[in-house]
Amino acid sequence: MNEQISRPVVRLRPKAEARAIRHGFPWVYADELVTDRRTSNLAPGAIATLEDAERRPLATVTVNTASKIIARVLDRDPGAEITQAWLTARLAHAQALRERLFDAPFYRLVHAEADGLPGVIIDRFGDTAVIQPNAAWAEAHIEALAAALAEVTGVTTIVKNGSGRARGLEGLAEEMVVLKGAVAGPIEVPMNGALYMADVMGGQKTGLFYDQRPNHAFAARLARGARVLDVFSHVGGFALACLAGGAESALAVDASAAALGLATQGAEAMGAGARFATRQGDAFATLEALAAEGAQFDLVICDPPAFAPAKSALQAGLRAYERIARLAAPLVAPGGYLGLCSCSHAADLAQFRAASARGIGKAGRRGQLLHTGYAGPDHPMLPQLAESGYLKSLVFRLD
Amino acid sequence: MNEQISRPVVRLRPKAEARAIRHGFPWVYADELVTDRRTSNLAPGAIATLEDAERRPLATVTVNTASKIIARVLDRDPGAEITQAWLTARLAHAQALRERLFDAPFYRLVHAEADGLPGVIIDRFGDTAVIQPNAAWAEAHIEALAAALAEVTGVTTIVKNGSGRARGLEGLAEEMVVLKGAVAGPIEVPMNGALYMADVMGGQKTGLFYDQRPNHAFAARLARGARVLDVFSHVGGFALACLAGGAESALAVDASAAALGLATQGAEAMGAGARFATRQGDAFATLEALAAEGAQFDLVICDPPAFAPAKSALQAGLRAYERIARLAAPLVAPGGYLGLCSCSHAADLAQFRAASARGIGKAGRRGQLLHTGYAGPDHPMLPQLAESGYLKSLVFRLD
Repeated sequence: MNEQISRPVVRLRPKAEARAIRHGFPWVYADELVTDRRTSNLAPGAIATLEDAERRPLATVTVNTASKIIARVLDRDPGAEITQAWLTARLAHAQALRERLFDAPFYRLVHAEADGLPGVIIDRFGDTAVIQPNAAWAEAHIEALAAALAEVTGVTTIVKNGSGRARGLEGLAEEMVVLKGAVAGPIEVPMNGALYMADVMGGQKTGLFYDQRPNHAFAARLARGARVLDVFSHVGGFALACLAGGAESALAVDASAAALGLATQGAEAMGAGARFATRQGDAFATLEALAAEGAQFDLVICDPPAFAPAKSALQAGLRAYERIARLAAPLVAPGGYLGLCSCSHAADLAQFRAASARGIGKAGRRGQLLHTGYAGPDHPMLPQLAESGYLKSLVFRLD
Repeated sequence: MNEQISRPVVRLRPKAEARAIRHGFPWVYADELVTDRRTSNLAPGAIATLEDAERRPLATVTVNTASKIIARVLDRDPGAEITQAWLTARLAHAQALRERLFDAPFYRLVHAEADGLPGVIIDRFGDTAVIQPNAAWAEAHIEALAAALAEVTGVTTIVKNGSGRARGLEGLAEEMVVLKGAVAGPIEVPMNGALYMADVMGGQKTGLFYDQRPNHAFAARLARGARVLDVFSHVGGFALACLAGGAESALAVDASAAALGLATQGAEAMGAGARFATRQGDAFATLEALAAEGAQFDLVICDPPAFAPAKSALQAGLRAYERIARLAAPLVAPGGYLGLCSCSHAADLAQFRAASARGIGKAGRRGQLLHTGYAGPDHPMLPQLAESGYLKSLVFRLD
């Protein structure tokens, strides 16, 4: 992997902002880079030295001319060698944080740019790790990455999950490969006192959403003796945490029968199967049906997929968040709690909060805002990219 | 207290926005209200019925012509009677939330508007409660409020803390009165596994800052085996939580010898006196002195007073936050953690985060942002006032 000797050089255009890179911004956009024939011919994921317009070296980058983000900073050191030892050091640094934060090896181990591995997501499920190489350089170095991962963590199974929108933007194909070991079935994941079943081969994303951990924990604090409704439940994220927190009952709603099956398995593994029920179907329709039935819950949580994944979808997305709030609020018993989540990059906290409050108001309810939460600390952010913190979780108490 | 019979009526001006009140906004500003002689003659804190310009009743309000906030909504019901029973119901509603959230009666029981008691702060310290009646109506009804508080909570000691900036804006005098029972000395407060000493008669605010509880807890998760520096420590807020979290040592810095004395008492009560040290003095000067001594810590937290208490102080405040970050970052060992807090209304999250990141960068360091925290859930917000969420806590991991 030593590409030092004949390493290509790429250069910022005269008007491009080298200061941002010097201050830690991790990306170069396509219109900021001189794209001569030599650069255009670089293989996707090639390692290069980035220079400013005056030919001063800035950083070690990876280049992908097929991506709008044409270069990503790998190392502030312009002469860094991107070897397996380099990968090992980055992974060990990431692991040290998680070992300090968590008692058991179930967490997001690598959160891309903020962990110094641009475009790389790695989730840890005990002895199994799932890599999402969402940037071309990681795809090109997948074997060294997997070897470094096994070395640092001792995992015996490594899955490459090549699905998702991000890979398309990098010109990468969809594929799912077991790189090491074997996957026998869903993996049991302990979190917040609950047990989740993660299907690392067939599930959404890497099989489980670790990002909601602190928000699950907050909901669980409200759950003692409560009737809980978890809409867009996936594998039971909020529902099972609330059962662990002492909920009287939890009803999980999701469009995916497979996800609800895993949720049921989790509830049964916790010994809480008798307090758990599921309802498969469209979330909006199910909320309306529950209202028509006169159902009431002490705690209702809605954790939908991104309604506003891009700026172009912002207004429609905000209307959808408002509608969710308007349909969910009537199901909350007086003095009960309503949790509303957004994982939309495009909708910022103030916009999402306003849409939620409008929906609650249109349902004729008033509320106190108790909790504003983000993704947990195993999902760090670069301060330079912190505006894009995608996950927002609000918990209201309704009159 | 039944003022129903001869209750005054106040009226919005024709162009004033009645919709905001209908949607839950709790305040009427002085220029929005018809201030005829009858209204001008109302005693501060008088209870009145608020009407819109078309004489349609909107709400039950309290009026204080000495305040820019000339009316505060007490009840959406225009005919509500503000009796001791009304106060009791509001307090019971507030207590029900806290009892769900916390194992022991140490919390903010009432957080003003968001708990339906405008301008009223009540902190609970076991058998003692401290009321801050920061609006004229609460001062006028202090006896009924104290009686309702004793009825709902069973506290045996009630202190009225009439200090602080907010009372001046309402034309209220400063005073400290024991309304019920007696205060024997500092009160031992268990929180996050630590023990704090709250001086409810002589301390800052009500004697302890409960708002930082979740951020203390996050810092404590990082503290195992760590050397901790807590700057602007007050009675040991972050330091004692970190000692409870297994810190090797904690050094608390504060300008107040009295606060540091209480912090030391807390550390000793926890059996952690040998791991705790204090340094009295100016925080900026102490940070510089520690750097000159070559001191290094694994976790540094700075929780200063509001540097930007008002919009007019915003730029100076942001420079002070940047300076704190620049002086604190060099004291963080490689791979260590830096917590930076702001309790400035005027500085929003993005501004505070940017100032903090600039300071870290000017110190030649880079960081991941791990945690963005606000005040805990015993400090609820009205969604309509959520922009004013004053407390922000950021935790970075520095390279």
